[in-house]
Amino acid sequence: MNSAFFSDLLTTIAERSRALLGLPGEDDGAGRNNGLVDLCEALLSGRGEASGTALAREVLDRYAALNEGERPAFFMSLAKNFGPDGEALAKATQAWTQSPSQDKATAIHYASEPRRQEVFRRLNRAPGGTAALVRMREHLLKLLPAHPELKVVDRDFAHLLASWFNRGFLVLRRIDWSSPAVVLEKIIRYEAVHQIRDWDDLRRRIDPPDRRCYAFFHPALVDEPLIFVEVALTADMPGAVQPLLAGERVATPPEQARTAVFYSISNCQQGLAGVSFGNFLIKQVVEELRRELPRVDTFVTLSPAPGFMKWMRTRGLDLVAEADREAIETLDDPLWPQDEELAGQIRAVLEPLAAHYFLEARTTGDRPVDPVARFHLGNGARLERINWLGDISPKGLGESAGVMVNYLYDLDQIERNHEAFANSGEVVASAAVRRLLKAGQRGRLAPANGVKA
Amino acid sequence: MNSAFFSDLLTTIAERSRALLGLPGEDDGAGRNNGLVDLCEALLSGRGEASGTALAREVLDRYAALNEGERPAFFMSLAKNFGPDGEALAKATQAWTQSPSQDKATAIHYASEPRRQEVFRRLNRAPGGTAALVRMREHLLKLLPAHPELKVVDRDFAHLLASWFNRGFLVLRRIDWSSPAVVLEKIIRYEAVHQIRDWDDLRRRIDPPDRRCYAFFHPALVDEPLIFVEVALTADMPGAVQPLLAGERVATPPEQARTAVFYSISNCQQGLAGVSFGNFLIKQVVEELRRELPRVDTFVTLSPAPGFMKWMRTRGLDLVAEADREAIETLDDPLWPQDEELAGQIRAVLEPLAAHYFLEARTTGDRPVDPVARFHLGNGARLERINWLGDISPKGLGESAGVMVNYLYDLDQIERNHEAFANSGEVVASAAVRRLLKAGQRGRLAPANGVKA
Amino acid sequence: MNSAFFSDLLTTIAERSRALLGLPGEDDGAGRNNGLVDLCEALLSGRGEASGTALAREVLDRYAALNEGERPAFFMSLAKNFGPDGEALAKATQAWTQSPSQDKATAIHYASEPRRQEVFRRLNRAPGGTAALVRMREHLLKLLPAHPELKVVDRDFAHLLASWFNRGFLVLRRIDWSSPAVVLEKIIRYEAVHQIRDWDDLRRRIDPPDRRCYAFFHPALVDEPLIFVEVALTADMPGAVQPLLAGERVATPPEQARTAVFYSISNCQQGLAGVSFGNFLIKQVVEELRRELPRVDTFVTLSPAPGFMKWMRTRGLDLVAEADREAIETLDDPLWPQDEELAGQIRAVLEPLAAHYFLEARTTGDRPVDPVARFHLGNGARLERINWLGDISPKGLGESAGVMVNYLYDLDQIERNHEAFANSGEVVASAAVRRLLKAGQRGRLAPANGVKA
Amino acid sequence: MNSAFFSDLLTTIAERSRALLGLPGEDDGAGRNNGLVDLCEALLSGRGEASGTALAREVLDRYAALNEGERPAFFMSLAKNFGPDGEALAKATQAWTQSPSQDKATAIHYASEPRRQEVFRRLNRAPGGTAALVRMREHLLKLLPAHPELKVVDRDFAHLLASWFNRGFLVLRRIDWSSPAVVLEKIIRYEAVHQIRDWDDLRRRIDPPDRRCYAFFHPALVDEPLIFVEVALTADMPGAVQPLLAGERVATPPEQARTAVFYSISNCQQGLAGVSFGNFLIKQVVEELRRELPRVDTFVTLSPAPGFMKWMRTRGLDLVAEADREAIETLDDPLWPQDEELAGQIRAVLEPLAAHYFLEARTTGDRPVDPVARFHLGNGARLERINWLGDISPKGLGESAGVMVNYLYDLDQIERNHEAFANSGEVVASAAVRRLLKAGQRGRLAPANGVKA
Repeated sequence: MNSAFFSDLLTTIAERSRALLGLPGEDDGAGRNNGLVDLCEALLSGRGEASGTALAREVLDRYAALNEGERPAFFMSLAKNFGPDGEALAKATQAWTQSPSQDKATAIHYASEPRRQEVFRRLNRAPGGTAALVRMREHLLKLLPAHPELKVVDRDFAHLLASWFNRGFLVLRRIDWSSPAVVLEKIIRYEAVHQIRDWDDLRRRIDPPDRRCYAFFHPALVDEPLIFVEVALTADMPGAVQPLLAGERVATPPEQARTAVFYSISNCQQGLAGVSFGNFLIKQVVEELRRELPRVDTFVTLSPAPGFMKWMRTRGLDLVAEADREAIETLDDPLWPQDEELAGQIRAVLEPLAAHYFLEARTTGDRPVDPVARFHLGNGARLERINWLGDISPKGLGESAGVMVNYLYDLDQIERNHEAFANSGEVVASAAVRRLLKAGQRGRLAPANGVKA
Repeated sequence: MNSAFFSDLLTTIAERSRALLGLPGEDDGAGRNNGLVDLCEALLSGRGEASGTALAREVLDRYAALNEGERPAFFMSLAKNFGPDGEALAKATQAWTQSPSQDKATAIHYASEPRRQEVFRRLNRAPGGTAALVRMREHLLKLLPAHPELKVVDRDFAHLLASWFNRGFLVLRRIDWSSPAVVLEKIIRYEAVHQIRDWDDLRRRIDPPDRRCYAFFHPALVDEPLIFVEVALTADMPGAVQPLLAGERVATPPEQARTAVFYSISNCQQGLAGVSFGNFLIKQVVEELRRELPRVDTFVTLSPAPGFMKWMRTRGLDLVAEADREAIETLDDPLWPQDEELAGQIRAVLEPLAAHYFLEARTTGDRPVDPVARFHLGNGARLERINWLGDISPKGLGESAGVMVNYLYDLDQIERNHEAFANSGEVVASAAVRRLLKAGQRGRLAPANGVKA
Repeated sequence: MNSAFFSDLLTTIAERSRALLGLPGEDDGAGRNNGLVDLCEALLSGRGEASGTALAREVLDRYAALNEGERPAFFMSLAKNFGPDGEALAKATQAWTQSPSQDKATAIHYASEPRRQEVFRRLNRAPGGTAALVRMREHLLKLLPAHPELKVVDRDFAHLLASWFNRGFLVLRRIDWSSPAVVLEKIIRYEAVHQIRDWDDLRRRIDPPDRRCYAFFHPALVDEPLIFVEVALTADMPGAVQPLLAGERVATPPEQARTAVFYSISNCQQGLAGVSFGNFLIKQVVEELRRELPRVDTFVTLSPAPGFMKWMRTRGLDLVAEADREAIETLDDPLWPQDEELAGQIRAVLEPLAAHYFLEARTTGDRPVDPVARFHLGNGARLERINWLGDISPKGLGESAGVMVNYLYDLDQIERNHEAFANSGEVVASAAVRRLLKAGQRGRLAPANGVKA
Repeated sequence: MNSAFFSDLLTTIAERSRALLGLPGEDDGAGRNNGLVDLCEALLSGRGEASGTALAREVLDRYAALNEGERPAFFMSLAKNFGPDGEALAKATQAWTQSPSQDKATAIHYASEPRRQEVFRRLNRAPGGTAALVRMREHLLKLLPAHPELKVVDRDFAHLLASWFNRGFLVLRRIDWSSPAVVLEKIIRYEAVHQIRDWDDLRRRIDPPDRRCYAFFHPALVDEPLIFVEVALTADMPGAVQPLLAGERVATPPEQARTAVFYSISNCQQGLAGVSFGNFLIKQVVEELRRELPRVDTFVTLSPAPGFMKWMRTRGLDLVAEADREAIETLDDPLWPQDEELAGQIRAVLEPLAAHYFLEARTTGDRPVDPVARFHLGNGARLERINWLGDISPKGLGESAGVMVNYLYDLDQIERNHEAFANSGEVVASAAVRRLLKAGQRGRLAPANGVKA
């Protein structure tokens, strides 16, 4: 190979890169003006090393003082001025192309590290640095739709945060009525599935003996839950959420419970979007509960089907026989569940349709349409039961005509289920759910012509 | 640019890389035999994701079961089979060379990540994973001299551990007589500067009111100090360590102390070699002490000069006037300090030589010869005083003819000192030390002909 | 002295006592029926000793199972059957009367210990025993008005609880937004001075930087505050509570505050009535705040005057000149503060009257009429200021026509003030308060004919 | 009854008492001189109440400054000047004798409380007060043999401390290698049965998985264990202590252990002598272990027989047949166990004698001679086995010719055993121990003529 040629070529590329990177863009103004970018450069220098954490603190303070309108310029600078060192990258690439080796490939990796990664690592040294970086990324995520050129910055954020919030660094803590109020108020605020109205409502979720709540925490984010799951201990697998959360329900004594129901999982930190905790949380809580309550042997969710109605009104309708479409239209009236006869008609149509939605319908990426289904099936859970009128709240009726789903976590089957799902796209489901689909195919559902969602 | 040509070229490179990587080497045997390498592959697959932490635990258990002779094969596999994905790298490089941009440069970085980094991150998820990885790297470091081809693995270890043990994740804890024995025994074991003989000796270091000990801990390594510093509170800057550590010394009441003396800093985890904590530790302890004891205004080390004698017997001798060499030779007799007249002669020669050693002598890399000096000067400290007969233990006499050094930490000067040192190689020193050097240059020292250490 | 006579006499007394004590009264029924009293006897026997804590647990469980109607019989048994051992008492008394000595006097003390004291001490051994005994006394206190014969039992309760809740065993803890919800809900529930409406209101009391809340806890009563005080940090001594608690107030940065205002003190445990914690709490909080905030040098309460209106409508009226009585009558209309002219008239009458109320009015026991005044003056505080329209809530207007009082805690004067108050009944007051009284005596107040409250 | 007579009589008694009490004795000097006694009086006054804890702190500081020779005078003052109030006592007694009632008997109790009890309670309020009082009593106990007149003071100390260190206030904590060194050094110091030589020896007792150590703590005495017990987990009931403590023993994995052996119980606080913790400690540890290790079903001690040799050389010898006395005499030679034949002879004599010692021998108070036996039998344990050569240390041979004993704690039998022991003096023993006694009676032991120890 003509290495001189290569050498020249790559030098050219590097120069061009430098030129591109070095160009002070029109957006730089604000960032440079309050000195933030210069400080970030200083942070990367030996001075940053020597200052202990003072310089990092200074950068974070100045960043915090930016108003919303000033932030984009700062992120632009991170995108343009703190990317990989083009020259080093060119050199490393050249060395590798001339005589490839593991060493040289690895050298490219280190040569191409965007400089902002080290900026972030050094900012993290300051007291409160981790929390400040999580907030910073939260700001960045909000800017992405309007500023796709900042995605390159987010990629580095996402990479570093995923590494730092590695499951091995997380601590599982039970949340109960002895937890600090500063944590509990966040549980109220972050609950995303079944709203917690106030402190009394919160107490009903975490204090009774048949209720549990667990959260992951990171040692650097004190009093900030990352994700939490709410659990009900019951005798049997429940099919509806309103009775489960009713104030006047009869509690199951924990020592008599056979089933643990995960009825709500909520992420708390928008700045950690994309760092996945849920899978680990559910599995560790299963282990905790097995240790504490050996009689509990069924671990199951009671989950929403948030995409069902939307799918049904679009692709799903094609599957509905003409004669049944009228019944479907009555779903717009929120009082339909109270008309027993009507509800019966609707059920006959919708249950098989729901089975189709979960088992057959696919996105263009050939994945199940329902996002909650994708999460639990991806975790290796089994689609256990489709529950009619499981959630009769306005939200439940609006999103899924009241349909709720149980996903079963059987730790012995999880790897197998996952592989079937991951490798061949198989949705592992109970016989009952499969029967529902078949009943539909034999009966009311119009022929499924390979419909994609 | 001829992109077809490039495309072909890079494909070729990638193929060659794959060939190289894929080659099952002769060392693979053991690793493959107990299935470790296959398990690492599984860990990277979706199955690894679904298994929660079970697979990671399994890998760590099997690794722990390897005997010393079996480990190299495992690390070889990590080096050969878990490097960057050559194909992805080739593609990313090609895209960048064709039309360079920040995005594409960053894409190279992610495409070139050695697969073992993800292996390490997934192993870290298991309970006790972090500690296991630190131990694993300790094993690797021992193998490096004989197996330089494993350096590529160590680079990834070093990178990840530095990121995970970022100062922002460390917790400073005071070590005292209320600390758990499991921590204290490690202080005894890891003390590397002035040996702690037993528990009574330990108590004298941490329990009296004029003594302090602080350590950094990481939340994932319970009861394992990472680095610790021992501090004595004194009226004045001390010049000798034996009186400082004497059992029967008169303690300075903390509220009367004006000086905090850092007389010993020890790293504890060999597996974290290269991750630097010392700089941060000293600076945070300075802040802690200022808060607790506002009267203390001088923060100073009492440090060894571990390279002095070695340097003196080689390069240093050239600087010694012929007439003085005889005195130098008597240093071999460990009793020389007891002969006052002789000691006086030696001092007249060695003190200026020590000043030269610290201020003028340089390594081939143009840095100060003394490793301890490099550390403290790099932190921004000032060379404050050279102490004659500061350490008359056999070790002290052997390494440095008893010379000890005070480095002064003046937080207001630290950045400036550091920059002078980093940018122009200036060793910031007190007037007294400078005088010592000048006295030597005017007097006994032979002309310094740009001698390098 | 005729000792035979004595001997006989005392034996007779003892027998009569035994007869009295032994009489199974009609109320015994319930207690005996569920075996509680027999179990208490067993508890006092060697069997109680051998059973560890099992028997004590059993007694407490059975007591807890009593319904409200069954409790009196149990307490009657404690009164009748578990008093002092008459025979032992007679013997000890006889020995002492025959030849008095310190030893023999002390022996009487031990001989006369009511057996229920040992019952209580042994019950306390059970897990949760202390809390159970505090609850038991709470029940007893409710029965006392209807069952004065149970006072003898309460005396023993009070004695033991005062000894066990000795200030040396109490722990001061700051209550803030990081405190457990299980503690905070009790702060909401037990606040007795200025009601806390809900969790948001609570947060405004304990979370802002210019607010503090401290409570005493006992190690055996986990998560149960005994008493707490709410503190506001302010620039100056405040005269009114509504602005102090207003949601939209401007907070004083703690480092600028010069004054700490104790605006609410509440006891939490009815079962500990009569065990006084308030004096110690205020004094320790003063010390805490002085340590944390050296600039704060004024420690003052903002206190209600709960007895003022009641006193004024009875004894106070005699002091009001005929011409002013009409103005006083308008106090029944809660809107009077809004009529400035009227309010002015009322003030001219009521302020001197309030000064009289605090400085001159006395109970039949020759103590100040106001219970809050008695508490703070007894603690050695000084009556610093009488505040017009300090509390314009319905409660404040109803109890004290809106009058509030500042009591000043000057640790250097506390012992002196206390002695003046305790020995000569002197109400130590500021010159301003004294002037108010004199103005009244010279002006509007009718001559005070030695009026007692 | 002639109440006037009584009234006069009791007044006389009271006056005489006052005279006696008031007399300033010759020993008062020192105490009064440094103002301690006056301060104690002040402490009892309202001033003491108002001073918060300052006055109490002052008294404790001055007491701590007393040298050993000055302490007796202080305690004398407590004995003489701080006893019951004679006048109040006379009045209360008179009221009771005139018309006895429960109320009046109880009133005597409170009237006769020695004033020093309130002194102690008020001293306890000071920070560190509880610890100071425990030390004060330790001093007092040392003075008692020479100053029996101080017993009256000790009685009050003992009473208050027993009430304050009620089991309900104690906290059980496991002691292991994670415990603070400040606690562990006390375990080394206070171990009274089988000496702990150094920190390595300590570690062997508390760190291996088959070892446990538990202690009671009181919240007011931080880091001060009150009593601790060392436990070994074993397969079977052990008969000898040296193998149990051997450094190179094979550990029983805790999950395989069936037996928990309490081989050492030590009290730590001399100032708490007479407050019994051991009974509660053993029983709670049994419960802890049953919870943690359900397979462990035998709870047994391995105990010394500290009084055996002393008894044998006095009373026991009478039981030894003339022919066997020579063998007994060889016990003076500490090497006797090494001569197997001799040891066999001795065993034949001593084992039955030991059975007699435990089962038959009685003190003049008709209790078992052995103090350790009295403790465990009083707790309801059963004498399970007498072990030949159980402790071959010089101490073991000297005290008990090497004999050790297992006492079995069977929670289901404990109350029954205790009652048999307490009511009829029965030593509950295993059939094996009883057989040993019978064998002796049939064989070598001389007829037991109702020998008392």
